Amino acid sequence: MIYELYYWPGIQGRGEFVRLALEDGGADYVDVALVPEEQGGGVPAIQRYLDGDDIKRPPFAPPFLKAGRQLIGQTPNILLFLGGRLDLAPRDSAGRLWAHQLQLTLADFIVEIHDTHHPIGSGLYYEQQKPAAQRRTRDFLANRVPKFLGYFERVLERNATDGPGMVGNRVTYVDLSMAQVIAGLRYAFPNASREALRTRPRLRTLHDAVFARPRIKRYVASGRRLAFNNDDLFRRYPELDA
Amino acid sequence: MIYELYYWPGIQGRGEFVRLALEDGGADYVDVALVPEEQGGGVPAIQRYLDGDDIKRPPFAPPFLKAGRQLIGQTPNILLFLGGRLDLAPRDSAGRLWAHQLQLTLADFIVEIHDTHHPIGSGLYYEQQKPAAQRRTRDFLANRVPKFLGYFERVLERNATDGPGMVGNRVTYVDLSMAQVIAGLRYAFPNASREALRTRPRLRTLHDAVFARPRIKRYVASGRRLAFNNDDLFRRYPELDA
Repeated sequence: MIYELYYWPGIQGRGEFVRLALEDGGADYVDVALVPEEQGGGVPAIQRYLDGDDIKRPPFAPPFLKAGRQLIGQTPNILLFLGGRLDLAPRDSAGRLWAHQLQLTLADFIVEIHDTHHPIGSGLYYEQQKPAAQRRTRDFLANRVPKFLGYFERVLERNATDGPGMVGNRVTYVDLSMAQVIAGLRYAFPNASREALRTRPRLRTLHDAVFARPRIKRYVASGRRLAFNNDDLFRRYPELDA
Repeated sequence: MIYELYYWPGIQGRGEFVRLALEDGGADYVDVALVPEEQGGGVPAIQRYLDGDDIKRPPFAPPFLKAGRQLIGQTPNILLFLGGRLDLAPRDSAGRLWAHQLQLTLADFIVEIHDTHHPIGSGLYYEQQKPAAQRRTRDFLANRVPKFLGYFERVLERNATDGPGMVGNRVTYVDLSMAQVIAGLRYAFPNASREALRTRPRLRTLHDAVFARPRIKRYVASGRRLAFNNDDLFRRYPELDA
């Protein structure tokens, strides 16, 4: 099966959580936005599924994944689907729900990370909401980061006798996503995240272990992984990283 | 099986999406926060799972559901679990993923609804963030409500030849949640939601059909369904409903 990933070009965004799973799982996939428009790719290929009148089950937004005739949207839902197929999820149903639960908690965290620079409206520029962004970020770094990272560190700790990751005895897609969130936080808030990770050694170790995995290393080295940038989910505005 | 639902007392909140499924599915369940503390209920029973050192797979936040020995957190995950058991989900796996995808899109919408009154920090009072709340709500009502409701109306329309709800040929938990979101929007923003629903007849019909279902009617009539209030997810601040 050749999977088709549909996600906006030029940013890692939420698509990157799916890419990391596809890469680590050794899946064959096409990143459709990177295919030339003349060959049916690019942004029009994405719009076609979002806006086409003949799409019976349209996704609300990218990323979405085409697997045969199935079209699957919402990042955690895509990972739920791929987890079993790419051997990146627990094999028992209780473990799968637990992994998905953690992924949904990460998704909540990701919304809050995004909203630090866009607290008023996602359709407005950062420059149109700077004072609100500063207040929101202050609250986020003081209260939300410790709450989320403290929770995930605890999850790692309680699973430590079973395995190296967050769930069960093997690396799952949740670990890949967690490592990506840590990388993103370090990009966006180098000072605050150094401070927040100082007391969370398991999260630091998990990040390093994920980015040392052979297929992830190969993916990063390939140049196909985009750099973090300020049109993306994780943004570095020094004034926010006080 | 007697399910145990753990959710903060005094508000509908995210717990209500689970309650509607349990009620409509005719499940036996205990709303643990309503059980007296002396009998092992109340808020301490919730805290026990959030904070207990011996909880191997702790939830991040309520609601969570105990089903036998399994503890399941995150509203859409709980509904994914219950959907099949309560006959409130499609029977095929592609349909289940699609229902879950819609539920996750509703979850995104719910975060944005909440953040209209809390754009800066969930730990602060509304009164501490009123100007930001007004700006965020203006953007929400102008751009986000039409985008989300337009999407869900379209989903209903494209499924209309198959069934009365959003997915397949039967009512699912997604329909129950959608109806609850409409009820909440009407409470929070009576003017803006009248306007927004004027051109979305299928959503209005879905809302009425859900609240006319015998078990839902019985639940509402029982007095067990709490009223919407301003400590909750959906809040009515007239100054925001311009």
